[in-house]
This record gives sequence, C-alpha cells and structure tokens, in this order.
Amino acid sequence: MTADHDTFLSRAPLFVAMGPELARSTVQKHTPRFYERGEEIFCEGEAADSFFFLIEGWVKVFRRGDEGEQVVAIFSAGDTFGEAAMFVGGHYPASAQAVSPARVLQIDGAALRRVLLENPQVAFSMLASFSDHLKHLVAQIDRLKARSDAERIADFLLAQTKETSGAVTIALPYEKPLIASRLGMKPETFSRALVRLRDHGVKVCRDDVLINDVGALSRFAARPPGAEARSGG
Amino acid sequence: MTADHDTFLSRAPLFVAMGPELARSTVQKHTPRFYERGEEIFCEGEAADSFFFLIEGWVKVFRRGDEGEQVVAIFSAGDTFGEAAMFVGGHYPASAQAVSPARVLQIDGAALRRVLLENPQVAFSMLASFSDHLKHLVAQIDRLKARSDAERIADFLLAQTKETSGAVTIALPYEKPLIASRLGMKPETFSRALVRLRDHGVKVCRDDVLINDVGALSRFAARPPGAEARSGG
Repeated sequence: MTADHDTFLSRAPLFVAMGPELARSTVQKHTPRFYERGEEIFCEGEAADSFFFLIEGWVKVFRRGDEGEQVVAIFSAGDTFGEAAMFVGGHYPASAQAVSPARVLQIDGAALRRVLLENPQVAFSMLASFSDHLKHLVAQIDRLKARSDAERIADFLLAQTKETSGAVTIALPYEKPLIASRLGMKPETFSRALVRLRDHGVKVCRDDVLINDVGALSRFAARPPGAEARSGG
Repeated sequence: MTADHDTFLSRAPLFVAMGPELARSTVQKHTPRFYERGEEIFCEGEAADSFFFLIEGWVKVFRRGDEGEQVVAIFSAGDTFGEAAMFVGGHYPASAQAVSPARVLQIDGAALRRVLLENPQVAFSMLASFSDHLKHLVAQIDRLKARSDAERIADFLLAQTKETSGAVTIALPYEKPLIASRLGMKPETFSRALVRLRDHGVKVCRDDVLINDVGALSRFAARPPGAEARSGG
C-alpha cells in the first residue's frame, strides 16, 4: 500500500462505506496483477467470488449479445468493479476486459462476506454510508439537471400544481429561504431569479405565486407539462 | 397500502434496495401519522430507533448551531429519511420538522435490523443494490457536469496528460467508439464534436491526438489545468 492507494481508497464508494480500517485490511492482503490490453479479467457467467480494484489503466465491462457487444461501463483508476455480483455471491452478469494495460487488485469476496457476517454492525455501517451517499448524489443530480436558477425555480413552481395549461395560483409550500436552500441557492440569488421569472409570467405576492400560463412556463423550464419533477416534488 | 404507496416504494433507494417483498412488509405494519407545519418529527440527539417514509408534504432536517439553524436536507413525498442513523443504531445527528402539513410513516428500525441480522443475504443484496445504484448516479453526474459534447471530449483528453500548458501529443487510451460510449455519446456525435475541437487546436491522427495548447483547451473546457477529472480519468 502506498499513499496513492490510500487516496484511491478514499474515493471508491465501496471502500469509503467500509470505513478506513476494513478497507485497508481488505486491500492489503492482495497483490496487484498486470493485464495486457484485451485480456479478460472475468467472464459473464463465472462465479462471482471476487471483486476488483483498478489501480491503473482502463477496464470495460460488457455483455455479448445477439447484436454484438454491449458496453455496460468503463472503469478507470480508483474504481472498484464486480462488487454487486460479489455481494450477492452469484455469477458475474457481464464480462470485464482491460482496454489498456491495466493493474488490478483481485479481492476475495468470500472473505469480505465472512467479515460482514461476523460483524453485522459493519454491514449496517456500510448500508448507512451508502444510503447517505446516495442522497447526496441524487440531490446533486437534481441541481445539475436543472440549468439556470430561473429554470430551476420554474421547475419547482410547476411541481406544485397538477395543471398543465392556463393560469394558476399556487401557495408556496414553505418559506422562501427554505425553498432557496432546497434548490441549493442563496436567498438573494433566489430573489433575483424570481424577479427574472416575471418575464415568463410569474408574479409573487407574499406566499402566493401566480403563473399566467403553466404551458408557457413549462416550455421555458424545458419540462413536459404534468411531469413529476423530483427537484420540486 | 395503496397503488400510490407502491409507486413511492419503487422510488426510494432504500426500499428499492430492500426488494419489493421486504419493502412492502416493512411499510405495511405501520400507520401514517399527520404532522402540523412546524411540528418536530425527531430531535437531534434522540435514539435513532426508527426511520421515516414521507407520504405527503415537506420535511426539513436541520441542525441547531451557534450561528442559528443549518438546513441539512429537505424531503418531499416518496423520500425516506433518518435511515442512516437507524442503520448505525445510534442517535439522530440532526432534527426533523414538518415544514408543511405532512403525512409520515414511522418505521421500526430495530425490527428491520433484526430481519437483516437473521437474513444476512438480504443485507448483502441491499449492499449490492446500493453499490450498483451509486455507480449509475456517479456516471450520470459525470455526464451532467460536463456541458457540451465538445467540452466533455476536451475534458477527457485533458485528463490524459499531466501537462498544464504548451503543445502535447497524447495517445488515446483505447478505441474511439469505446471513448464515445464512456462519455455517453453515439460514435457519430463523438466524431462530429471531435471535428469541432479543431477550432480549439485539437488534431486527431489515428490514435494520437495533438493538442496545440493545453492551457487554451483547459479554458475552453472550463477546467483548471492539471485538475483531476473523474469523467476522464
């Protein structure tokens, strides 16, 4: 293990979820193996008794089908792969192949599962960490998906109504600073963007918002009318 | 349980991870409770013996600090909250309060932990599901973060070199269709965007790419020179 490996361990969600101690002890027991470009690391259908930690290079995971090869994912240094199959203890649902010279640690899955069986609290900590991590990513995606501040607010407002056209008045579900925080904006950014929405037929009066034309605002927000918006509801 | 609840169960990552059977049986035993706006659902420091499923309304999770209240997250219908603390079986690290009238299922965490202790395979399936889900979200964030196709390719190319200025020649780490797939583009979109990069000093010759000025390309990609780019490396 080098300092470099330690950086990697703090990046792969699986190792982060394990906690530093288990992550380090899991990795330390193994020595990396080199793969030439084109070499297969595991094959679809093989027993999934390991997972893999990519130290260097690129690996593709793919399925062979009637219509040729379907690439499922491409991994780069610092990524782990094969762990979902390993946890279930079944068979790899796809194959993995080095697409450049690659250095890979193959990690014994049965041993890891044993540790978790003997220490269910560690498995629970991993579930806690994963579930926390997921929430942060989902929130980040919500923010990234919506483009401008004004569009994001429009999206939020549209999520408050089931109408798909015409004028509606909606009551803000909670205080403006909280809405700003939910959308990841500073209150002043929120206020400025709200002002900009006047051009798109949005008028705010205390906690009520009047939308002149829901259809038009949907087009502005690039959001199909009536679609459920996770970012807002 | 209504059809509506079933839709919700298929949306919250925790329930998806549990699998439909355990999710339904976990939820079925409980009856929802109504909270008025402003009512607290749990308080920072309380024993985390439950987690919560928000059926209707809005809930904020926040910490009270020296500098006032810090909102950690805002949840809406279909979300679960409090599960990370519940898995660890410790104390809630923050408080939860209804910010609108809300309908909430409080779900016994001890019972769920017992089920997982008795059926470690279910816990493993949940770990597998979480870890799969995380990868998809991370890949989605990678794609969303980078803006145009040309910028995403520039980002990928820049990740192949440690140089921060001047001209460099880099060897593509693997075939172009694979790079396109890694970046979530069709091969023809990739080729077109690559052509557009000529204006930014990028010339492709077989598997080699000549970048006239790494600094200029970094500015185009809005990417600090030398920064690690997950999307590309």
